[in-house]
Amino acid sequence: MQADIGVYGLGTMGGALSLNLAEKGFRVAVSNREADWIAPFVAGAGPLAERIVPREGLEAFIAALTPPRVVLFMIPSGTPLDEMIAQVTPLLSPGDTIIDAGNADFNDTERRARALAEKSLHFVGLGISGGEEGARHGPSMMFGGSAESWDRLRPMAEAIAARYRGDPCVAHLGPGGAGHFVKTVHNGIEYADMQMIAEIYGLLRDGAGWEAGRIGALFSGWNAGPLRSFLIEVTAAVLKARDAGTGAPVVDAIRDRAAQKGTGRWTMIEALKLGQAPSTIAAAVDARVWSSQHAARTAVAGAIPAGARDVAIPASPALEEGLRAARILAHLQGFELLRAASGAFGWALDLPRIAEIWRAGCIIRSALLDELAEALRAVPEGAPLLLGPGLDVTLARTVPALRAVVGAGVAGGWPVPALAAALAWYDSMRQARGSANLIQAQRDFFGHHGFERIDAPGPHHGPWTAKD
Amino acid sequence: MQADIGVYGLGTMGGALSLNLAEKGFRVAVSNREADWIAPFVAGAGPLAERIVPREGLEAFIAALTPPRVVLFMIPSGTPLDEMIAQVTPLLSPGDTIIDAGNADFNDTERRARALAEKSLHFVGLGISGGEEGARHGPSMMFGGSAESWDRLRPMAEAIAARYRGDPCVAHLGPGGAGHFVKTVHNGIEYADMQMIAEIYGLLRDGAGWEAGRIGALFSGWNAGPLRSFLIEVTAAVLKARDAGTGAPVVDAIRDRAAQKGTGRWTMIEALKLGQAPSTIAAAVDARVWSSQHAARTAVAGAIPAGARDVAIPASPALEEGLRAARILAHLQGFELLRAASGAFGWALDLPRIAEIWRAGCIIRSALLDELAEALRAVPEGAPLLLGPGLDVTLARTVPALRAVVGAGVAGGWPVPALAAALAWYDSMRQARGSANLIQAQRDFFGHHGFERIDAPGPHHGPWTAKD
Repeated sequence: MQADIGVYGLGTMGGALSLNLAEKGFRVAVSNREADWIAPFVAGAGPLAERIVPREGLEAFIAALTPPRVVLFMIPSGTPLDEMIAQVTPLLSPGDTIIDAGNADFNDTERRARALAEKSLHFVGLGISGGEEGARHGPSMMFGGSAESWDRLRPMAEAIAARYRGDPCVAHLGPGGAGHFVKTVHNGIEYADMQMIAEIYGLLRDGAGWEAGRIGALFSGWNAGPLRSFLIEVTAAVLKARDAGTGAPVVDAIRDRAAQKGTGRWTMIEALKLGQAPSTIAAAVDARVWSSQHAARTAVAGAIPAGARDVAIPASPALEEGLRAARILAHLQGFELLRAASGAFGWALDLPRIAEIWRAGCIIRSALLDELAEALRAVPEGAPLLLGPGLDVTLARTVPALRAVVGAGVAGGWPVPALAAALAWYDSMRQARGSANLIQAQRDFFGHHGFERIDAPGPHHGPWTAKD
Repeated sequence: MQADIGVYGLGTMGGALSLNLAEKGFRVAVSNREADWIAPFVAGAGPLAERIVPREGLEAFIAALTPPRVVLFMIPSGTPLDEMIAQVTPLLSPGDTIIDAGNADFNDTERRARALAEKSLHFVGLGISGGEEGARHGPSMMFGGSAESWDRLRPMAEAIAARYRGDPCVAHLGPGGAGHFVKTVHNGIEYADMQMIAEIYGLLRDGAGWEAGRIGALFSGWNAGPLRSFLIEVTAAVLKARDAGTGAPVVDAIRDRAAQKGTGRWTMIEALKLGQAPSTIAAAVDARVWSSQHAARTAVAGAIPAGARDVAIPASPALEEGLRAARILAHLQGFELLRAASGAFGWALDLPRIAEIWRAGCIIRSALLDELAEALRAVPEGAPLLLGPGLDVTLARTVPALRAVVGAGVAGGWPVPALAAALAWYDSMRQARGSANLIQAQRDFFGHHGFERIDAPGPHHGPWTAKD
């Protein structure tokens, strides 16, 4: 039996994706670096095994594919992928396609696509979100690659994708690294959303003294309202979970040290290069860094006072509304970054379509993304996304609550870096006249940099420049 | 006459540095890409012209130098410098030294140093701070290069450097890009300090309705206290300056669009690569980005309400104390970044010495840097710098004021991103137990990432992983 596609890498995600493909009727060749993973995988596939073609060794794996061949790699995206590409390329023929379905730095994807195009091979950077569950039953997928490879792979991609009211959550976003770039920003927004949720949790736990299960119940309630989303659902579930042995909340026993695998940092590095400032994502990356400095925090905690006041945490409707405002702001920062990248790289990214393919399957799927898709379609070309119709009204109603929540954290000594960053962006963008005029005056004073005036064209210098 | 050193690039900084060298008794060959700048420069040098050796063309310029030759370039550090290095290298001999005295991405400096070392040439990345004034009469200098080149250049560097109570503000910080790295972080701290000052200015202007001159007078007063520093002095001066014609404050006519030349972004990109989170610098970079989005801000300002309360801006002692706390925190973030880089790159940076050479000459020179130098000497090896003796006491006393200032901005709708970031860092590092346990639970739920427990070794998974 010849296969329609080959999946190399039978870890959590690769295995789940193979089963998803087989379930949708595709014949899937599978292989793995450690060959002894292959048989157990097939054995665990149940009736789907009849459409799975297990192969040990790269040559046999490639030989099992129907030309033009499609090979999907789900392996670490750095050196291992480059080595794998070098090994597999001689086995392929012009017109074949290599897919990188892992998270990758989009700069690497661009480089690989260029190199493989010279050999008449297609290279697809496929962003996949949804974790194991999504990969198995329907992920959200961000496709970057040639139009030809999209035409070839679209039926397969649409068959395995998550669906939102029937609409498959996959789109061809652009050539080369476009898909991986959008996936990176998706993860950046995910970082911000998780951090803001954690800040609300921290306020309730430390500021209001709530027990984990009670906080979980609150989140469950929110999940029935405008905050409805996978991450709120997950939050409620993990807060309610109890240790089998002691019956104590599991979350209370977990070390407060958050790991990161790189996509948050990639988002920030690309944002800096593009002159963009998604400050909520930055705050979330920062918070994970500080969480990892456990020894330092322990040393500082005993030695330095809060200097805080005894303040009441706002009531739950204010927390819910404040989180809603901050979530909107974080998403808009992510979409502004996508817009900037689209312009800089000539991708013509369809922002509303991106919001649409994030409505199901992916980690940040939420009711908000449906609102966002509509708002992004309606916002005039080039206008600030903060003016997205509907969002502006919601922000006007919910920002006062965000002020109250951030204010409580600030006064009470509970850290709310991402919520505060969201608010600072809102307030900065609301200022037709900010305070950077002072900075320009300072720079001209000591560096003779010059400044613009509001009342006359051309560069100017202040009267202070004569100073010696 | 043969020269002791050659300075190529007679812009503001290169010209000032040449005069400084000549004044200290060194014979300086000068040249410039546009040869017609040379004669006017010499004409303007007055009696110092007797130690200046003007030369048109690179060959004549190099021929004017006493071997082993020292050539200092003060030109843009990107492609122009690489082209210049390619042109000048064939004219030099083993043992000669090339100095890049501009701001450079330290990665470029490392690359250039390696390439030139293969030709037995020394390459010095020399960070110079102090603007035109500093370059002319005594800058702070951060020297990166071989021990041999430092031995050779030290007398010259110490002669032209600023002095703090007799101590020259220059040090050999390490090989290759170490000097440029430290200069980059210096500028990052400068960004943060300027932004925090601008936020206080914004609160007074927009929140309290103060006129520019009144705010300038307040800053003048602060400059006699613990905030004493060049940047506070500059702030007072520019706020008090008036248009010759109208008599109106100059600062009111300056466009609120702050430019940036790259060192703030470089600081952030390197921090991200090093897993560090200098959030006050990030906030300052962000604020400059938003300041540049003038059209967007104008569009948003009219369309979106503040949703703010009518709050009073804290009185000036609280503003002064809050700014003092935030300034300390921003500096400590910068020094933590330097410490991380030192470890990662094997530089053995002497942090207190860096604080010392920043006490005079450079843009961030301040009373605080003297306190910092002492505190950094006293802090135990590897301990969080937040525990620096003396600083901890000052923070304990001033952080309540920072809370009040940030709280006023948050409630009143005036953006204080950098001040808020400083406070959020303080509060995050004060938490022996943060809220990242929730994030680890979420990550394990949807991605099977695993987590640590506080009560048992080894990676764990939650009971929720059985889901679906």
